[in-house]
Amino acid sequence: MKVRVTVMPKAGVLDPQGKAIAQALAGLGFEGVAEVRAGKVLMLDLAETNPAAARAAGEAMARRLLANTVIESFTVELA
Amino acid sequence: MKVRVTVMPKAGVLDPQGKAIAQALAGLGFEGVAEVRAGKVLMLDLAETNPAAARAAGEAMARRLLANTVIESFTVELA
Repeated sequence: MKVRVTVMPKAGVLDPQGKAIAQALAGLGFEGVAEVRAGKVLMLDLAETNPAAARAAGEAMARRLLANTVIESFTVELA
Repeated sequence: MKVRVTVMPKAGVLDPQGKAIAQALAGLGFEGVAEVRAGKVLMLDLAETNPAAARAAGEAMARRLLANTVIESFTVELA
């Protein structure tokens, strides 16, 4: 079962990578880019076949390893 | 208008970051993780208000800067 974990910096947390991308886009001539936030996406291929259990496993992995919950929030979706 | 660009390594392209995460999950006792693929997600806040134009802008930015289309594929969604 495939599970997608998306990890984003929390609102209010500085995101220098996103800022750099926004500046680079402006430098390339793309106008009207108000903000860029850069996050990670992890596609997990799990042996688990129960959707609820797979989602729960993804959340446990995100909390334990994939996200730093002090500064990042995460969402888990079945994919 | 918010646009989400998701960038993933193409199938067949080695993904050492994903491999390292899979090994770390196994080391933490998470079983049944067959594969992890690690990608990026960029949330763009654009001044553009037309959905089709915002999506087209996101695709142009992905092709030009956000993704390396030799080894990465990307998807663009309105968010």
